[in-house]
Amino acid sequence: MRLEIFTTGGTIDKVYFDSKSTFEVGEPQIVEVLREANLTVDYQVTSLMRKDSLELTDEDRATIRQAVQNSCATHIVITHGTDTMIDTAKALVGISDKTIVLTGAMQPARFRLTDAIFNIASAMMAAQTLSAGVYIAMNGRIFNPQAARKNVALNRFEEI
Amino acid sequence: MRLEIFTTGGTIDKVYFDSKSTFEVGEPQIVEVLREANLTVDYQVTSLMRKDSLELTDEDRATIRQAVQNSCATHIVITHGTDTMIDTAKALVGISDKTIVLTGAMQPARFRLTDAIFNIASAMMAAQTLSAGVYIAMNGRIFNPQAARKNVALNRFEEI
Amino acid sequence: MRLEIFTTGGTIDKVYFDSKSTFEVGEPQIVEVLREANLTVDYQVTSLMRKDSLELTDEDRATIRQAVQNSCATHIVITHGTDTMIDTAKALVGISDKTIVLTGAMQPARFRLTDAIFNIASAMMAAQTLSAGVYIAMNGRIFNPQAARKNVALNRFEEI
Amino acid sequence: MRLEIFTTGGTIDKVYFDSKSTFEVGEPQIVEVLREANLTVDYQVTSLMRKDSLELTDEDRATIRQAVQNSCATHIVITHGTDTMIDTAKALVGISDKTIVLTGAMQPARFRLTDAIFNIASAMMAAQTLSAGVYIAMNGRIFNPQAARKNVALNRFEEI
Repeated sequence: MRLEIFTTGGTIDKVYFDSKSTFEVGEPQIVEVLREANLTVDYQVTSLMRKDSLELTDEDRATIRQAVQNSCATHIVITHGTDTMIDTAKALVGISDKTIVLTGAMQPARFRLTDAIFNIASAMMAAQTLSAGVYIAMNGRIFNPQAARKNVALNRFEEI
Repeated sequence: MRLEIFTTGGTIDKVYFDSKSTFEVGEPQIVEVLREANLTVDYQVTSLMRKDSLELTDEDRATIRQAVQNSCATHIVITHGTDTMIDTAKALVGISDKTIVLTGAMQPARFRLTDAIFNIASAMMAAQTLSAGVYIAMNGRIFNPQAARKNVALNRFEEI
Repeated sequence: MRLEIFTTGGTIDKVYFDSKSTFEVGEPQIVEVLREANLTVDYQVTSLMRKDSLELTDEDRATIRQAVQNSCATHIVITHGTDTMIDTAKALVGISDKTIVLTGAMQPARFRLTDAIFNIASAMMAAQTLSAGVYIAMNGRIFNPQAARKNVALNRFEEI
Repeated sequence: MRLEIFTTGGTIDKVYFDSKSTFEVGEPQIVEVLREANLTVDYQVTSLMRKDSLELTDEDRATIRQAVQNSCATHIVITHGTDTMIDTAKALVGISDKTIVLTGAMQPARFRLTDAIFNIASAMMAAQTLSAGVYIAMNGRIFNPQAARKNVALNRFEEI
């Protein structure tokens, strides 16, 4: 397997439950996105958790780190809520010989207008082309998690 | 003007605010939907309120009734949350010489897969073809609000 | 069965074949459109032919008329190319006790921005609400085929 | 400017003209795709030509090569029809100090289901992360144009 994709929840996976009038984290939307993209790259999707990233605990991050370490793939993509994406990225530093790219979305993948497809594609390409390490792929760019933050007011990632 | 469309909020108009991680009732989405539909029918969209229909009060319903009565159009469409659509429809009974059709959506209009476009089109056609009275247009059918309910479990309207 | 839908081809059903670099009339797209619309109305879709409407012959129109007459439904929708939609509508005049509504699209149903969903919904509602006769549902309005034309330059239907 | 994007036409840019019942290469669709993607990367889109790639001449390829050489950007993306994408890529070999990535789509960007957004994102990321050279980004992978072909029957790119 060339690429392993772990999903953890976040805005990208939010779906709407009319009966409850609420949006909640649902099935990993990346499966549907990738089906439409006509891919020939060999990949596998594994759902680790379905959480808003504000709810992720240290234990969750340990679970993610363990899953990445155990993966037989050297190219790893993780879909994640944007609020604590950088925290999780930092918690993955030090895993050797793997290129790990985190991404997410500001608008759910189910929307007609969404950054989800673009971000997933960016992350999958970055995971294949960058050297080993941990990266954030958002807004069409690559960020070093040690030197980036989410600008909540402007709704985007930026260098610090 | 042939058709007046009043918007009141509901699922159909829900948008996502990443900065708050919440979905809220936003701008009337019908404006965008109708722009794409290549219409030549003469219509006007007026936003009366932006609420989940569970939050609508008797005062809100009086506002809606007043707006319908004051409209110079005889063909009226109202977009509305589904939970109390029937209550509002009943509160509009007795307005003479106007065909009033309420509709909404189970999935927000901004989703790639949504019933919003279909329901809006159904309601606009019903408002032009039915005789004066108050109707619900949902699930491809016309319901008499006096003899219909929302089946929350099955997520659809049905006759009683 | 409450509604029978006959498909004949036209722009609404055009799909893209990359291997041939051409768009051709494909599978009836209405099946997918209706799946998303959360309908409870009882309907059936029957594909009669897959043609650009400019290629429809008198024999094709006889086939369509026969199919409508043989249908056990009294509410009939026909999806059709727009160029000769009015000719086919005229060829259906005189069928008694059925409400027959023709519709189509200026942009294929597979496009992100398309009038197909709106037009299909309009036609299905009109077929259920109008008295027996033959009608065109396009641009959010109902046209009498005896007094309508397609304005090719403006890309819409209008009264004459 | 970090990234310059040249558009040349191809399936990705095909739009539908109902009045002519034909699909033709239209405005560069990438502009709309990128508007939705919430990018902060500094880029510019320049339309060089609007052709099916089967119609591209040696002169057209010379024009593309000249445009790439004249660009002040070192990261270059070119959207292109898939049929002769590899020929154009080979015609760009030897331009020094620039990372040049060609991409396109099997389904037009205007379709609801399309590989266009995914491919554009892949190419933009590859252009920023790969070393100088000429590459094809299709099907979620990077191809060396000297060792790749379009498999027309399977509708995808593959190594040779």
